[in-house]
Amino acid sequence: MEVKMRVGIVGATGYVGMELVRILSVHPGFYLTQLVSRSHAGQRISDIYPNFSRVVDLELQTLDIDRLAADCDLVITALPHGVSSEIVPQLLDRGLRVIDHSGDFRYRDAAVYEGAYKLKHPRPDLLSEAVYGLPELYRRDIAQARLVANPGCYPTCSLLALLPLLKNNLIRLDSVIIDAVSGVSGAGRKADTAYSFCETVEGFRVYGVVGHRHTSEIEQECGLLAGLGRPLAVTFTPHLAPMKRGMLATVYADLLPGQDPARLQEVYQAAYAQEWFVRLLSPGQLPDTRLVTGTNFADLSVHYDKHTGKVKVLCAIDNLGKGAAAQAVQAMNLMAGLPENEGLTAVGMAI
Amino acid sequence: MEVKMRVGIVGATGYVGMELVRILSVHPGFYLTQLVSRSHAGQRISDIYPNFSRVVDLELQTLDIDRLAADCDLVITALPHGVSSEIVPQLLDRGLRVIDHSGDFRYRDAAVYEGAYKLKHPRPDLLSEAVYGLPELYRRDIAQARLVANPGCYPTCSLLALLPLLKNNLIRLDSVIIDAVSGVSGAGRKADTAYSFCETVEGFRVYGVVGHRHTSEIEQECGLLAGLGRPLAVTFTPHLAPMKRGMLATVYADLLPGQDPARLQEVYQAAYAQEWFVRLLSPGQLPDTRLVTGTNFADLSVHYDKHTGKVKVLCAIDNLGKGAAAQAVQAMNLMAGLPENEGLTAVGMAI
Amino acid sequence: MEVKMRVGIVGATGYVGMELVRILSVHPGFYLTQLVSRSHAGQRISDIYPNFSRVVDLELQTLDIDRLAADCDLVITALPHGVSSEIVPQLLDRGLRVIDHSGDFRYRDAAVYEGAYKLKHPRPDLLSEAVYGLPELYRRDIAQARLVANPGCYPTCSLLALLPLLKNNLIRLDSVIIDAVSGVSGAGRKADTAYSFCETVEGFRVYGVVGHRHTSEIEQECGLLAGLGRPLAVTFTPHLAPMKRGMLATVYADLLPGQDPARLQEVYQAAYAQEWFVRLLSPGQLPDTRLVTGTNFADLSVHYDKHTGKVKVLCAIDNLGKGAAAQAVQAMNLMAGLPENEGLTAVGMAI
Amino acid sequence: MEVKMRVGIVGATGYVGMELVRILSVHPGFYLTQLVSRSHAGQRISDIYPNFSRVVDLELQTLDIDRLAADCDLVITALPHGVSSEIVPQLLDRGLRVIDHSGDFRYRDAAVYEGAYKLKHPRPDLLSEAVYGLPELYRRDIAQARLVANPGCYPTCSLLALLPLLKNNLIRLDSVIIDAVSGVSGAGRKADTAYSFCETVEGFRVYGVVGHRHTSEIEQECGLLAGLGRPLAVTFTPHLAPMKRGMLATVYADLLPGQDPARLQEVYQAAYAQEWFVRLLSPGQLPDTRLVTGTNFADLSVHYDKHTGKVKVLCAIDNLGKGAAAQAVQAMNLMAGLPENEGLTAVGMAI
Repeated sequence: MEVKMRVGIVGATGYVGMELVRILSVHPGFYLTQLVSRSHAGQRISDIYPNFSRVVDLELQTLDIDRLAADCDLVITALPHGVSSEIVPQLLDRGLRVIDHSGDFRYRDAAVYEGAYKLKHPRPDLLSEAVYGLPELYRRDIAQARLVANPGCYPTCSLLALLPLLKNNLIRLDSVIIDAVSGVSGAGRKADTAYSFCETVEGFRVYGVVGHRHTSEIEQECGLLAGLGRPLAVTFTPHLAPMKRGMLATVYADLLPGQDPARLQEVYQAAYAQEWFVRLLSPGQLPDTRLVTGTNFADLSVHYDKHTGKVKVLCAIDNLGKGAAAQAVQAMNLMAGLPENEGLTAVGMAI
Repeated sequence: MEVKMRVGIVGATGYVGMELVRILSVHPGFYLTQLVSRSHAGQRISDIYPNFSRVVDLELQTLDIDRLAADCDLVITALPHGVSSEIVPQLLDRGLRVIDHSGDFRYRDAAVYEGAYKLKHPRPDLLSEAVYGLPELYRRDIAQARLVANPGCYPTCSLLALLPLLKNNLIRLDSVIIDAVSGVSGAGRKADTAYSFCETVEGFRVYGVVGHRHTSEIEQECGLLAGLGRPLAVTFTPHLAPMKRGMLATVYADLLPGQDPARLQEVYQAAYAQEWFVRLLSPGQLPDTRLVTGTNFADLSVHYDKHTGKVKVLCAIDNLGKGAAAQAVQAMNLMAGLPENEGLTAVGMAI
Repeated sequence: MEVKMRVGIVGATGYVGMELVRILSVHPGFYLTQLVSRSHAGQRISDIYPNFSRVVDLELQTLDIDRLAADCDLVITALPHGVSSEIVPQLLDRGLRVIDHSGDFRYRDAAVYEGAYKLKHPRPDLLSEAVYGLPELYRRDIAQARLVANPGCYPTCSLLALLPLLKNNLIRLDSVIIDAVSGVSGAGRKADTAYSFCETVEGFRVYGVVGHRHTSEIEQECGLLAGLGRPLAVTFTPHLAPMKRGMLATVYADLLPGQDPARLQEVYQAAYAQEWFVRLLSPGQLPDTRLVTGTNFADLSVHYDKHTGKVKVLCAIDNLGKGAAAQAVQAMNLMAGLPENEGLTAVGMAI
Repeated sequence: MEVKMRVGIVGATGYVGMELVRILSVHPGFYLTQLVSRSHAGQRISDIYPNFSRVVDLELQTLDIDRLAADCDLVITALPHGVSSEIVPQLLDRGLRVIDHSGDFRYRDAAVYEGAYKLKHPRPDLLSEAVYGLPELYRRDIAQARLVANPGCYPTCSLLALLPLLKNNLIRLDSVIIDAVSGVSGAGRKADTAYSFCETVEGFRVYGVVGHRHTSEIEQECGLLAGLGRPLAVTFTPHLAPMKRGMLATVYADLLPGQDPARLQEVYQAAYAQEWFVRLLSPGQLPDTRLVTGTNFADLSVHYDKHTGKVKVLCAIDNLGKGAAAQAVQAMNLMAGLPENEGLTAVGMAI
């Protein structure tokens, strides 16, 4: 008998946790049984986010591994790095399947993690088991996984842009530049004047110009896509735009001599023909983050600048959607044997 | 055998039409069979609103009454006033049920309509049949109606705030003031510098200070709620806030001598205990339009200013939601014999 | 010999302090000699607000009354209530003239202050000396004052709207309702998720529904304008709009029987003919906060709703401009014997 | 005897024209004598932009070359390309000095102009006389010029970022990528749903991905800076952020082998030590467009990514300020023999 999986969320009151609850509250394939929040235990999710009132009024719980083990089949952790790596192993030990949102299980090589996050990894043994949760790359492994490491938002956006180029060996590998922009929710739920309304609206800024943590995650997966035995170095720059949600990556690379730029659209078409969540735009259309808000879609366009020989790929996602919570639900659908877009077909609210 | 109703939308590319398509695309009880758009016939809805791509790619049709009659059980018209009154009668004549979004069928008295809209009504005979589509007031009539006139956004917001006061005869009838604020989508889809980004953002303004059309609609229904044989004159002022969606009404009235202000919360509690879409806030909570965005909820709070003897009622809705499209779907659910909140239980996207 | 006055600001890094520095940095009549900031002493103003770099790089000082006495002729205090009342007397004792931005010296009656602010006033003796700093009401007193209490933003906006009605005895005194809206900077510089970008943008909300402190300040001055021996009770509701700056008050009152509504425009014309900072709009024009941003202007329009006999007056100001810093500079010009609009004639940046 | 120059603006009601009026209205060195607007002649500037009321109420004129010649010493044209090239020669013929905002006189080579703008140039003879109005490059020529072609916003932002690299021969010339973002005012004053509030706010998008006109302008000046006898091909991508004003360029280039990345900050320091309007940020600071809004400043930071050997330079300007009107005023100051920052020292309004 097929039954719905029971799902718990640990870290339910951050923005990613909130988005997971929002999506799962209308998902026909899962039951939300446990919402865990250290800082708000005893309150209801609708006390923190009153838009949930009447629809989801679940009480927030303290973290209790036994209770999670009893009430859930799968747990999604939306916790800071360093915290996930402490808690996730306990969940796995109780037989739970886990989707983790932190950087803690995204790396193949503990040394790379430790370089990027300045933390010693407590369970490097789990890194080989963990599956990098980008369904467009690792669909089959995700379906079987015990531990899925949900990708970062910038890596998701960048990798979807680069995948056809790298898999088809079309570009000079040392030429990749990713210039990306995020909405403010990417910074999480913070009391900080740097993200206050008055000091954010009507401004566009740059941050993490050199050495942003997501760089190493992008590099690991690009290296694998390119079939290298090592990460592929890329240049990455994140920016902050005055909007709640949305992410756009503008990716630059040199087309290899002899490659036909006229075939780029076709290459992308082929790469994504079977991917429901990747919308390759027609020539003449261009991505706008507004058009993917609240969804799991990635809107892509590919261009060739004959003037300089550069390929430009543009990819727009919702940083909380395909960049976090909705992508986790896509992975959960795979893990549960459900249609991959179950519960993820609502039209986004663009106006 | 129960079957899904087939639904057509005439005026599908305005913001109300778009929101109807968005909601109905995931509604389990209706089929969208016809999207009519005079200006964009031949294109797909996803050409105009690319966020619909892959989920709703229906082609937009010219207006063809025969085809609507053949393909639909119910038609929703989202047309300018004066246009609706020409087209709706033709739809009714073909046996279709209709929900109309214009002001054309909201009035009991053609003279009041003609005063407000400066147009002669071509079919005053239909006014007595048309049901004013506020389910919280006319649930039973809506269920049976052939023609539902979906209320204006300001009237919806104002009437939900005033209903318990007027029905229970708690206020001085000549004291009602409604100070209200709308998001910019209330102005519709327009190429107009007055609603351009640069001349709207970071500004708050007033419009229609005296004589806004919605005033007469509010007055008609307030008169009925108060049991008068005539409209109840109210003072109404609409404003424009720099946000896409949302409406907040701040309603003022004098509590009648002898009425106990301590009972106001209880009165509202009683009035709305059975209403799923009206969320009466607990004392200490206050409405924020952000929290109802994308939903059919109305968030209400009631207060007494002992200093001046005024009752203040606050009501927040989404002008395109409970103020337009979602409310029409609530009415459709009633007309189809479905649960009233079918397809309307998604949590709004507040972040 | 006429010389420039030397000015110090205590509380220079809050938003009001910052706006004072911005205005005074190009004012030909004053020298900024001291910027005091408890929390940021030792840094430069341009470290906190990098937009000041190269133009104003003054170092922020600790509070040192002796140094202020030595370096300044006039000090502006932009401090929380309760703090001002401790510091201002010390400044006065050293012979300084003071403009204070808190509520501490705005009241004629210490008991009213203590009711509104829940604090015992340490120096009620100064209340009779302090001048309420609204130049349109107290121009002459301000010019001579030793201590000016700069009005609150809501009182400024409300009083300019009501002044001609009350002075000319045109309205029923128990009928005044003020429905007002502020931009987010009115909450000050705070690390608080309630004012974070993500939880503020695209939302309109209400706060302080009953008993907002500014009510008592408005009531005091309305009572004086109406020639009562006591405050005039008014109904006041503040709201928060998703914009940095701006304030709009919509004021309602019943026109007294026998008063001619056709004369309202003329009455306002007469009241403000000599006021450079009050722009009475022509019939057909309506206030928009965007159009006064960054300035000391108040844009006013007056209307009569013959339907209900209500006068409606609309007034837009910049809450940090005419509602705070720019108005303080207007007062300083009076105190220094300068033209009242000296340094305040820049066109606002509406786009 | 030194006298103020009399200035006329042709195209005074577009956003650039408006910003020129705003700046010049408080400039001590110029008189505004003529505002020309084809579409609004007979109205006052304050009818179109009511924020000018009481400060600048000049009447808008039809275009009359004789009257301009009689009333002005210098005329600023803020007209579409193709229109400027018709009108500017007539102004020059009457002995006027001209600063033009269009692309018509920015090119050394008429063929390049004709390729980019798809128009035949009616007066290619003037191209050799016209001075490209970037003071940081052509200060002396501007001072003497009869015709100044004010640079485009993207070129200004890009060239200030690249100047020290190109002049000092530090980068591989075929490696330059400019990823840039503009506020919405860059699109001008348009009634167009693509720039409506509802379809712009909360979205970030890309446009002109290949072949944006400003590319050729950037390339011309880069070629000159690099000492090539031809344009330097660069890769350029413009984006649109949901804010009124602001522009940020993120520029990438490969540092040449042998060049010391540790010297980059120093190279930039040296290049801009004498430039009042270029604020080179300290290490640790990063540009934010909010901090240059309303000013003529360009905020710059330079970084080296040792991981990939790329130099990254960030430059933030106000697209209507240093990117258009304020830069024109800087040029006018030079032409009039005034201090270069005269009338341009107001602190920007960042909150």
